[in-house]
Amino acid sequence: MPDYREMWSHLGLDLKSHDALLTTLGSAYRDIFLSQKDRPEGMKYFDFVMSEVHGLRIKELMDAKAEGRKVVGSYCVFVPEELILAVDGVSVGLCAGAEFNFEGAEAVLPRNLCPLIKSAFGFKLGRVCPYVEASDIIVGENTCDGKKKAYEVLAPMVKDLFVIDLPQMKSDVGKHLLGGEYRKFMKKLEDASGKKITVETLKKGIEMTNAKRKAVKRLADFRKADPAPISGLDALLVNQVFFYDDPVRFTASVNTLCDELEGRVKDSKGVFPKKTTRVLISGCPMAVPNWKVPTIVETSGAVIVGEESCVGERGTQWLTDDKGETVDELLGAITERYFKIDCAVFTPNPSRIDHIKDMYKRYNAQGVIHYSLQFCHPYTVESGPVEADLEKAGIPVLRLETDYSQEDTGQIKTRVEAFRERIEAR
Amino acid sequence: MPDYREMWSHLGLDLKSHDALLTTLGSAYRDIFLSQKDRPEGMKYFDFVMSEVHGLRIKELMDAKAEGRKVVGSYCVFVPEELILAVDGVSVGLCAGAEFNFEGAEAVLPRNLCPLIKSAFGFKLGRVCPYVEASDIIVGENTCDGKKKAYEVLAPMVKDLFVIDLPQMKSDVGKHLLGGEYRKFMKKLEDASGKKITVETLKKGIEMTNAKRKAVKRLADFRKADPAPISGLDALLVNQVFFYDDPVRFTASVNTLCDELEGRVKDSKGVFPKKTTRVLISGCPMAVPNWKVPTIVETSGAVIVGEESCVGERGTQWLTDDKGETVDELLGAITERYFKIDCAVFTPNPSRIDHIKDMYKRYNAQGVIHYSLQFCHPYTVESGPVEADLEKAGIPVLRLETDYSQEDTGQIKTRVEAFRERIEAR
Repeated sequence: MPDYREMWSHLGLDLKSHDALLTTLGSAYRDIFLSQKDRPEGMKYFDFVMSEVHGLRIKELMDAKAEGRKVVGSYCVFVPEELILAVDGVSVGLCAGAEFNFEGAEAVLPRNLCPLIKSAFGFKLGRVCPYVEASDIIVGENTCDGKKKAYEVLAPMVKDLFVIDLPQMKSDVGKHLLGGEYRKFMKKLEDASGKKITVETLKKGIEMTNAKRKAVKRLADFRKADPAPISGLDALLVNQVFFYDDPVRFTASVNTLCDELEGRVKDSKGVFPKKTTRVLISGCPMAVPNWKVPTIVETSGAVIVGEESCVGERGTQWLTDDKGETVDELLGAITERYFKIDCAVFTPNPSRIDHIKDMYKRYNAQGVIHYSLQFCHPYTVESGPVEADLEKAGIPVLRLETDYSQEDTGQIKTRVEAFRERIEAR
Repeated sequence: MPDYREMWSHLGLDLKSHDALLTTLGSAYRDIFLSQKDRPEGMKYFDFVMSEVHGLRIKELMDAKAEGRKVVGSYCVFVPEELILAVDGVSVGLCAGAEFNFEGAEAVLPRNLCPLIKSAFGFKLGRVCPYVEASDIIVGENTCDGKKKAYEVLAPMVKDLFVIDLPQMKSDVGKHLLGGEYRKFMKKLEDASGKKITVETLKKGIEMTNAKRKAVKRLADFRKADPAPISGLDALLVNQVFFYDDPVRFTASVNTLCDELEGRVKDSKGVFPKKTTRVLISGCPMAVPNWKVPTIVETSGAVIVGEESCVGERGTQWLTDDKGETVDELLGAITERYFKIDCAVFTPNPSRIDHIKDMYKRYNAQGVIHYSLQFCHPYTVESGPVEADLEKAGIPVLRLETDYSQEDTGQIKTRVEAFRERIEAR
C-alpha cells in the first residue's frame, strides 16, 4: 500500500484514530470476506477497492479536484447521481456504517438516535472519513426526522451543505415539490462547477448511472440460481461499492464478475451447497462496514439471495428514462424515477410490500429477514404491517432491530438459527 | 357523579379497565392539583371539567351526535378547529397522556417509540378512551415519523381516519401543499356533516377559535407578575382543557378566571412567594394527565411561568385573520395561520428559538427547561442547538428527556433542584 499519510494529513484527518480505524476495518474484512470459500475470482477487484477505500480512491478524488471537478458527498439514494455526473462531478457516499466515536456524536446528538446518523457524526467529528473531508458539497435530504434535524446540527461543521427537501406522500404536489428541489440542486451543481448542464451532458450522466444499475441488476439475476453463485455478503459489498467507486470502472468490473457468475450458474457451481436455505433481507440500508447481520446469516447455514434495501434493489431497481429531448424533460424523467423509491419515510408505502413479495418469488427465497436500525421509526413502525402482510401470504418473517455494536451478535445468531429451522421444518 | 356506565358500555369501553383508570386519574388529580395552596377560585370550573372529563363531556358529545353533529378527534394542533366548528362539529383532543396498556401498544408498534403515540394506541386497544370511541372522524397528520407511520397502523382500528399531509420546510410549495390539504379536509367535513361551509359559518368558526386563543393569551399575560397569580400546573391544565371543552363555555370560564387573576396581580397575591425562581417549559406537548415534570418543578421551589409547547403558546399564539370575504380567502388565512406553527418537525425552525427568547423575557423567566418525550427525534435533536443558542444568550437551560413512567421522578427532581440552585446562584 502506498503511503497516503501526507494526503490524509492534508485533508485534516486524525492520523492516529484513522490508522486504528483502518486496522480494524482491514481485519474485519479479512475475517468476514476473505475467509469465505469458493468466492468468484471477480471479487478480487472489490477486495482491491476495499483495500484502497481510503487510499487510491481518495487519491482519485483529489486528482479530480485538482482538475476542477467537484466532489459531492451524500448519505441517501434520493440524491440524483445523474445530475452530479452531468457537471463532470464525482458522487460519493459518505462514511456512516461503523460505531466510531459515538461518544463524540452523542455530545451533539441524542443518544437514542439511529446508529447510521451517529456514525456519520462520529466519523466527521473524529476526523476519520476522507470522503467527507474531500467533499466540496455535502448533500442532505429530508427523509427521516433524525437525518432532517441532524443536518441542522451538521451544517456549521461542513463547508457547504445543501439539503434536498422531500415530500412525505406520493401525491401530485409531492412530486412537484421533489421536481423543484432537483431543479434547485441542478442549479447548485451548475454554480459550484461553473458548468451548464446540457441535454448532452445530462444524457451522459443518465447513461452512466443506468449502466451501473443494469450491471447490479444483471448480478442480482444470477442469484436466482440454486446453488447461489455468489454469497449475499459479496453481493452486498458490490452494492456498497456502488456508492464509492468510479462509475465506469465499477460497471465494467461488475459485468466481468457477471460473466464469471454466468459460467458458474451454467456449471451449477455455488458458494454454498445446493438447497441451502435462502433468505431475503429487507429494510434499512447497510453502509460499509455494516456487515453484521449478513455475516451472522451466512455463518448460520443460510444464504442471502437479495436485498430489499437502499443498498440493494430499492436503490437500483429503476432506470431513468433517457428519451427526453430537453433538459426539462430529462429532469422530469429523473424526478419520476426517484419519486418511485419506496422508502418507509413515505406514507402509505404499499409498493414496498409488493416489491418484497416480488423479490421473494423472483429469487426463490424461503423467508424474509426484516432488518431495522435501532430507533429508525419509519422502518421499525412499518415492520409490523410488513410482517403481518407477508406472514398472511405464507412468507416466514424474522424481524430484527439492531445497532452497530457487537453486543447482540449472539442473540441475533440464536434467532437467525431458529428462523432457519422454522423454514426448514416447513 | 351520575352513572355513565351505560353510555360507556354503549361506546364499547372496557368498564373494568376504565374504572381503574378513572380511579388512578382521580387520585393523581387530587394529589397534584387539589393539594396546591391558594389556588384561584376560578380553577373550580376546571376541577369540575376534569372530574367529568369522561362523564358529562362525553354525554355532551353523545347529545351532539344525536343532533346530527359530527365529533372530530385529533392528536395535533395542525388540525384546524375553525373548519370543524364551521360545520357545527365538535373538535376534541384524543387521549395520549398516560402510560396505559403499553404492552398492548407494543404488540403493534416498536417499543422504542414516543410515549404519546404508545399511549394513544394503549388507550385505543385497551378501550378506555371515550373520546376516540365517540369520534365520527379521527384526524391524523404527517408531523413526525412516529405518528406518520403509526397512523397506517391505526387506520384499520378506527372507522374513519383522515390524514392531513404536512410539508417539512416552510417553503412556498410547502405552504401550497398545506393549503391543498386543508381544502381536502374542508371537503371531508362537508361530506361527513352534509353541511356546506359558507363565509358566515367559517367566520363563526374562526371567531370562536380566536376567542379561545385570546382568553388563554389573556391568562398567560397575568403570569408575568411576581408573585405568579396562578401555578404553572393550573395554567397547563387550562391549556389542556382547551382541547376538550365546549369552546364557548371554555372561553367564558377562562375569562372569569382572568378577572380574578387581574385582582390578584393588583393585590400582589400569588400562589408562591414573591421571588420564587421562575422557569419556562419548552418542548414537546403535555397531554392530560401528563403532569409529571410540572409537578416536580413546582414542588421543588420553582414556578413555571410559561409553556413554549403545542399545549401552550406554540399552539395558541397566532390568531386566524377573519377579514376574508370568500371561503377561499378565509381558507387562505387559516393556512397562513397554521403554517406559522414552529414545531420541530420543520427544518430549519429558527422562529422557535426566537419565541423561546421572547417568552423568557416577556414572562420574566430565569431559566428554560427543555422538555422532550423519549424517542421524539424532532425535539431531542433540536434540543442541542436550542440549548447552545440560549446558553450563549445567557439563558440557563436544563434539558430533560423522559417518558410517562414514574421511574425517573427522583432523578429528574434532583436535576431540577440543581438547576434551580444554579439559577439562584447567579
